[in-house]
Amino acid sequence: MRNKNEYVHSLRDGREVYFKGERVADVTEHPELRLAIDHAAIDYEMAHDPAWTQLAVEGEGADAYSSYFKLPKSSKDLLHRSELIETATTLGGTLVVLIKEIGTDALFALHLVAHEVDAKKGTKYLERVRRFYDHVKNHDLAMAVAQTDVKGDRSKSPLEQEHPDYYLRIVGETPEGIIVRGAKVHTSVSINSNELIVLPTRAMKPDESAYAVAFAIPMNTKGVKLITSPYGSHHDDSNFDAPLASKHRMMETLTVFDDVLVPHDRVFLNGEWEFAGELAKTFVEFHRFTAISYKLPLVDALVGAALLMTHYNGLEKAKHIQEKLARLIAYAETLRALIRLAALEHETGALGIAIPKTLIVNMAKLHFATNFHQMLAYVQDITGGLIATGPGEADLNGEETGKWVRRYLGGRKGVKVEDRLKAINLVKELTATDFSGYQAVLAIHAEGSIEAEKLAMAREHDSARCVSLAKMLAGITHP
Amino acid sequence: MRNKNEYVHSLRDGREVYFKGERVADVTEHPELRLAIDHAAIDYEMAHDPAWTQLAVEGEGADAYSSYFKLPKSSKDLLHRSELIETATTLGGTLVVLIKEIGTDALFALHLVAHEVDAKKGTKYLERVRRFYDHVKNHDLAMAVAQTDVKGDRSKSPLEQEHPDYYLRIVGETPEGIIVRGAKVHTSVSINSNELIVLPTRAMKPDESAYAVAFAIPMNTKGVKLITSPYGSHHDDSNFDAPLASKHRMMETLTVFDDVLVPHDRVFLNGEWEFAGELAKTFVEFHRFTAISYKLPLVDALVGAALLMTHYNGLEKAKHIQEKLARLIAYAETLRALIRLAALEHETGALGIAIPKTLIVNMAKLHFATNFHQMLAYVQDITGGLIATGPGEADLNGEETGKWVRRYLGGRKGVKVEDRLKAINLVKELTATDFSGYQAVLAIHAEGSIEAEKLAMAREHDSARCVSLAKMLAGITHP
Amino acid sequence: MRNKNEYVHSLRDGREVYFKGERVADVTEHPELRLAIDHAAIDYEMAHDPAWTQLAVEGEGADAYSSYFKLPKSSKDLLHRSELIETATTLGGTLVVLIKEIGTDALFALHLVAHEVDAKKGTKYLERVRRFYDHVKNHDLAMAVAQTDVKGDRSKSPLEQEHPDYYLRIVGETPEGIIVRGAKVHTSVSINSNELIVLPTRAMKPDESAYAVAFAIPMNTKGVKLITSPYGSHHDDSNFDAPLASKHRMMETLTVFDDVLVPHDRVFLNGEWEFAGELAKTFVEFHRFTAISYKLPLVDALVGAALLMTHYNGLEKAKHIQEKLARLIAYAETLRALIRLAALEHETGALGIAIPKTLIVNMAKLHFATNFHQMLAYVQDITGGLIATGPGEADLNGEETGKWVRRYLGGRKGVKVEDRLKAINLVKELTATDFSGYQAVLAIHAEGSIEAEKLAMAREHDSARCVSLAKMLAGITHP
Amino acid sequence: MRNKNEYVHSLRDGREVYFKGERVADVTEHPELRLAIDHAAIDYEMAHDPAWTQLAVEGEGADAYSSYFKLPKSSKDLLHRSELIETATTLGGTLVVLIKEIGTDALFALHLVAHEVDAKKGTKYLERVRRFYDHVKNHDLAMAVAQTDVKGDRSKSPLEQEHPDYYLRIVGETPEGIIVRGAKVHTSVSINSNELIVLPTRAMKPDESAYAVAFAIPMNTKGVKLITSPYGSHHDDSNFDAPLASKHRMMETLTVFDDVLVPHDRVFLNGEWEFAGELAKTFVEFHRFTAISYKLPLVDALVGAALLMTHYNGLEKAKHIQEKLARLIAYAETLRALIRLAALEHETGALGIAIPKTLIVNMAKLHFATNFHQMLAYVQDITGGLIATGPGEADLNGEETGKWVRRYLGGRKGVKVEDRLKAINLVKELTATDFSGYQAVLAIHAEGSIEAEKLAMAREHDSARCVSLAKMLAGITHP
Repeated sequence: MRNKNEYVHSLRDGREVYFKGERVADVTEHPELRLAIDHAAIDYEMAHDPAWTQLAVEGEGADAYSSYFKLPKSSKDLLHRSELIETATTLGGTLVVLIKEIGTDALFALHLVAHEVDAKKGTKYLERVRRFYDHVKNHDLAMAVAQTDVKGDRSKSPLEQEHPDYYLRIVGETPEGIIVRGAKVHTSVSINSNELIVLPTRAMKPDESAYAVAFAIPMNTKGVKLITSPYGSHHDDSNFDAPLASKHRMMETLTVFDDVLVPHDRVFLNGEWEFAGELAKTFVEFHRFTAISYKLPLVDALVGAALLMTHYNGLEKAKHIQEKLARLIAYAETLRALIRLAALEHETGALGIAIPKTLIVNMAKLHFATNFHQMLAYVQDITGGLIATGPGEADLNGEETGKWVRRYLGGRKGVKVEDRLKAINLVKELTATDFSGYQAVLAIHAEGSIEAEKLAMAREHDSARCVSLAKMLAGITHP
Repeated sequence: MRNKNEYVHSLRDGREVYFKGERVADVTEHPELRLAIDHAAIDYEMAHDPAWTQLAVEGEGADAYSSYFKLPKSSKDLLHRSELIETATTLGGTLVVLIKEIGTDALFALHLVAHEVDAKKGTKYLERVRRFYDHVKNHDLAMAVAQTDVKGDRSKSPLEQEHPDYYLRIVGETPEGIIVRGAKVHTSVSINSNELIVLPTRAMKPDESAYAVAFAIPMNTKGVKLITSPYGSHHDDSNFDAPLASKHRMMETLTVFDDVLVPHDRVFLNGEWEFAGELAKTFVEFHRFTAISYKLPLVDALVGAALLMTHYNGLEKAKHIQEKLARLIAYAETLRALIRLAALEHETGALGIAIPKTLIVNMAKLHFATNFHQMLAYVQDITGGLIATGPGEADLNGEETGKWVRRYLGGRKGVKVEDRLKAINLVKELTATDFSGYQAVLAIHAEGSIEAEKLAMAREHDSARCVSLAKMLAGITHP
Repeated sequence: MRNKNEYVHSLRDGREVYFKGERVADVTEHPELRLAIDHAAIDYEMAHDPAWTQLAVEGEGADAYSSYFKLPKSSKDLLHRSELIETATTLGGTLVVLIKEIGTDALFALHLVAHEVDAKKGTKYLERVRRFYDHVKNHDLAMAVAQTDVKGDRSKSPLEQEHPDYYLRIVGETPEGIIVRGAKVHTSVSINSNELIVLPTRAMKPDESAYAVAFAIPMNTKGVKLITSPYGSHHDDSNFDAPLASKHRMMETLTVFDDVLVPHDRVFLNGEWEFAGELAKTFVEFHRFTAISYKLPLVDALVGAALLMTHYNGLEKAKHIQEKLARLIAYAETLRALIRLAALEHETGALGIAIPKTLIVNMAKLHFATNFHQMLAYVQDITGGLIATGPGEADLNGEETGKWVRRYLGGRKGVKVEDRLKAINLVKELTATDFSGYQAVLAIHAEGSIEAEKLAMAREHDSARCVSLAKMLAGITHP
Repeated sequence: MRNKNEYVHSLRDGREVYFKGERVADVTEHPELRLAIDHAAIDYEMAHDPAWTQLAVEGEGADAYSSYFKLPKSSKDLLHRSELIETATTLGGTLVVLIKEIGTDALFALHLVAHEVDAKKGTKYLERVRRFYDHVKNHDLAMAVAQTDVKGDRSKSPLEQEHPDYYLRIVGETPEGIIVRGAKVHTSVSINSNELIVLPTRAMKPDESAYAVAFAIPMNTKGVKLITSPYGSHHDDSNFDAPLASKHRMMETLTVFDDVLVPHDRVFLNGEWEFAGELAKTFVEFHRFTAISYKLPLVDALVGAALLMTHYNGLEKAKHIQEKLARLIAYAETLRALIRLAALEHETGALGIAIPKTLIVNMAKLHFATNFHQMLAYVQDITGGLIATGPGEADLNGEETGKWVRRYLGGRKGVKVEDRLKAINLVKELTATDFSGYQAVLAIHAEGSIEAEKLAMAREHDSARCVSLAKMLAGITHP
């Protein structure tokens, strides 16, 4: 299994990355991109840290491999995976690490759908998927997944758009492979992964078969252009002022496919339009389970920071604070409870793969997403206005300013001013900065929209049971 | 095990019941009380109905006993109990049956607390509890629980009240037993149970030891006066117009203890003030698990009725209806998920008794209670104004009126007018009548208040874990 | 101006009313219908009560007429009308009186739309409207409005339905007038009004001109059949147990038009399909202003009852009670504020008629409707479980029961038990009975649906202003 | 009246300002502080801009003065003031300008309270207030207000704290004036104002008279130390990427009073503890009216940006988008409506000063504060994930990156890619950056807390009216 150095080194492969409009020669040397790389390296560090080996590594000696790759076959496997993701995200300062998480979600889905396509269409995709799976697992590779197309006018289908490339599509085929053109947005960890897995974003119709395509390619494949989002770009944050953002960063790209050649062996869907939606959905469902798992440190941090500030400010007995704390606790623990139940009551799919209970996963995700902003408001309310008007590390260290800050910004007796300010700064990052804005946008949009989660819930709900009950109660005997 | 007749017959025991100010000579002959008795008999009918024997009966032949009495020792036991309660409530038209449910909740708590009191005070309460338990189990008796004191001024403690009897208390002792005086409110199923279990309502202080009392007595014990609430009093409802209330009813009493003698062997707490709060709490926690289980048919009925009306009105494709359905589904299924997890992740108390996870149970109860009224609004919204302005059974049967009702009150083609009206009437009873008002008040107040649930959550939450996480993230190293 | 006796007498006109499937010979003699008639008579009593003359009567001596009929021309007129409606509803025990309110809303709309149709189509409808207006005003008549068609499958238009009569339509014409066929639902106060005004329920298309019809006819017109809803049918309620429902009632009918002849002079729209939607909307907007005005006593009663119970229970200092009271106050006062502003910032339509500000009216209605059920929950929470389990008047009066009720159901020292129980009963009726269920369904459905209010808001909102601001801030200069 | 240059020049007065721990020699030369100064100068620019003269200037020629100073005497005055504040904030990119707004709020309150203190205590404060008022008005000075004390342990009063200076207090008196010591937090615009008005933060008790102090001093008074918060510190933002923060900034200080001498003529409260709470409250109430006025551009910008993105993304017909737009509209327009009504139904205080209706102002503020975060969620939801993952200006301008960004990030046909990205960037700043975090924290904490607003509402509400209504309806005749 690779260590951090090997991982970092592997990223010097000539990939075509742009940041603020300019080509980045070596992502590992770039100050801001390096932050994202160091953050991602947590996954590799854990595997070599005795504290986490048992959690992060499966098998022993030469057979050892990253636990992320384990195909889940039981509740225990799913709970293990969830704990691994939660732990890595905790070490990541509430920010998901993602370079193994999302790729394995895609691999689980590819196993299931390739199996189904092969059965129905006589194709041989499962063999390809397995070869690719062995490759990334054995070489311990970092993976990104590109799914969301740029979409153009959202009221229109791929063929109705101003030009046909608003959704990624197959534009040709050669003896070596297929040629694809288009662009994906929101591709996380692409600048610092080894492989890029590409999946369709939605169901396709018969005349849209060119858009039904899935594959995987190395990140330095010719024609793949990674245009990094500069969102939240700071590289000089103080650790005191920005305890999270100064150490943790994830980056997204607009990922352009400029007539990219994909070798046949790496193609997992090639025009079978009937399965585009199924693949999109199967991936997203695994990914939503991953997502709710990596939200746990974030919601627990909100609860913990609120409890800490309540203590530091001397407000334990204020009833309106208790009320807000109760809502924060119910919010966080409902999420945790639903994750656990989704694993405990999983379903078993093809190849014995354990699929977290879809209805519960979507309820958990919807619960998280639709209440998140209100929880930020509660934590801000409990903490106080100093979130936005407090001093920084330099003020604490300044001779004149430090004297006054220490004299006047204490809270409850016995609490160190530095600690109170650190806690306030944590709340600031969790609720009121670029870093929290990023988390908030992800809460709404990542892993499919709020509306998609509602649709999934409606589809998975046992409506027949409820309608039968209603008819029985109403005395309706007609079918 | 008793059958319905034996149960009904057993209620003719001279008990002192009042309805609308008048003494009821025989509760089984009174038209309105009889409705409540027939409803309660569901518990006895299930035990003799082959469809439910497996669920409702434990053991075989002479050893057979009602499953309600089984002391839970495992997740499986708790899930079985939950399913039993859910099923009986379904047969009860969304109204809990309760004559076994609440009494066994009290018995579980009495086992645990008697064990603890005996260990700490050298008393012999557990033996008494076990004798009483064997008695009710072997004779298959129906039980009510009287817990909530009348309380007077709620800002004052028992001794600060205008008179000392606003909380039930011990006023004397004789060789035969203790004498108790006071009154309890909200005593459900007392008019149609065999035994009355009495528990303290809150924690007591050293000088309040006279108020720390628990016991059980037959319902016809001298001095016990049951003043029945007339709430929702109708006894001529049509089954068509009121599919639930015409068949199902539960009744509460103001339960007066006019210097009642309780034999020593039936006394389970006698002045040990330190345990009053513990007993109150332990009972309530078991009872909250029971409660969330018996809310399931109600919330599923809301979902089912909404789905049915959506279909009958031809509104499946209306997005705003889908939105409301999604919220109803999330509401109901979150409740169900939390119940399951509370059983799956139970704790084990003294005597091996399985205790549903308290944090989860309280979250489930709070979720149910704080969103219930909004769910009624959604179901009313989906159904339409005919809930309040539609015709009744007599209109459908009237020669002239029936003609027009049939012509004009159809919905989607192919749906029978009668069925649409039945479904509307179900919604009416679930959301907009005395019957639903009763359910709504119970949603808020039964099994402890919303505020009590928040306190329980705060107490059970693993706050230390969250505070540690916050400190780690903020870089705070001081304890 | 008529007095109560004249009004009651006028209802003995041979109208074809059915209650519980049977023809009612004389509505004034029927015990349940009479309750609705006595309630409606409040409008007539006020005009003759010196306490209310100034509010309820316009003009003097022979020129005196009911203030409801005054065409509003200013903010002052609108505020006066709002106060009149609020006061009558207060006297009506939170239940609107409606026999003048809704009819005048229709008349205001008919003036405006007739004026417009005449201008665009060369018709002479305004003259007819004015003659009808003078007739009802001069004879001080009670009016009902039938608007909502039965609709059948709601996803289909009038002509797509299973039969063409799911929406009221013109089926013929004679020298005397037009012949109409169909049925309306939710027709309030029809059984006890003198005139029935009929309006279209929605916009119509060119091929639906037969459905574009508006007119007014006496309630005893041949072929008009009033099938009364039995919802909440109790006629023996005690004034103590049911302080509102025992005295106040409003009734709705399924109103059938069995080929009814409408004289030409009473026809106000006759196939001009382009104006059906406009007439429907204009009426509804006036009626929503009326509606929010008559909701004020209801929301103030919720606030007042909650404050009273807080006092009676000794809970003034409980913070969680204060929190719920604050939300109740904000709810009620926001409604009141929006009503006032809608009047103060009205628009002026044709004929100088003052139209309450549509955006504000719809926001007020939406605010009322979407938060109402939650407010019921707060009031129930504050009051306590006795809402559903308390004793009735007979218990208070019973010799034995009265003794115990008086001893044990006191609250704060100094509060009479009777008063506390009366306050609890008020809460019961406001939140947890058929009466409150009726109010709750009306909150959701009356005066157009919640979704209709959102559409009206979107239509009336000054979106251009906000988009321009956003563009300016974003630096977008293109149109 | 001063122009921008005069204003900027006036800030070079030797004031003791610290930024990131270091003394700032000249605030007008510091790149980040200069941003705040230029932003504040909007108030001076408006007075000289013909487009705004009528709004911003009162009187003519030598008598001309800034409209902010006008003591409001009527609804018209209040609406004028509200419009002025709204307009300046619009020009300020949704960020309040504040250098006149808050100071005049304090001046209005000082007039009222000085008048009251003089009447009750025989003091001569009103003369001093008027002299100071004439001074700032005639010299067109910028003013900051320092009110919130640092408070220490919030569960303790001033004298119970770890040291007596956690609340600002009088520590001595000389012939020239009084000596004050302590510190205030959250002091906005202090680094760029001319005068600092200091007010008490809460009611005081008799033994806390040293803490009952109010005064005004020039910002460069010896001993006044301004420690600027570095929150949101960026000074190199691109106008394209950060259309608001690149041009608009407000700064707060920890304002230390190191034994500052305040001349007697500038002291407005000097130990009269009975009036500390009254002064705090009166100021806050004026300031809340100011606050809700300057929130209007922010909430309208949220609505406008959401509408614009709906259009750019081609989503006008998506029902779930319409639902969220309706909620945004109701949110913004309810705020606007309540502001207008608070002005229209103002009360008149001493000296004829018009006081916006307190109940309505607090309801408006509470409405704004408690729903704000949810509105951010809606706007993010409507806009899409590109908020957090989109390209920046440099990407648009890069040769290679610009090509792809232009090809792939279009939305609806006909919309320029630049414009769509600009709109997305506006949403980013309004909802998901340091800038929006700052606004969100202010939404919760500025102008008094959410809980303070609830208390003000409870105090101002006409509870007697509602209780009387409830009693009348319940039939309760006892007082």
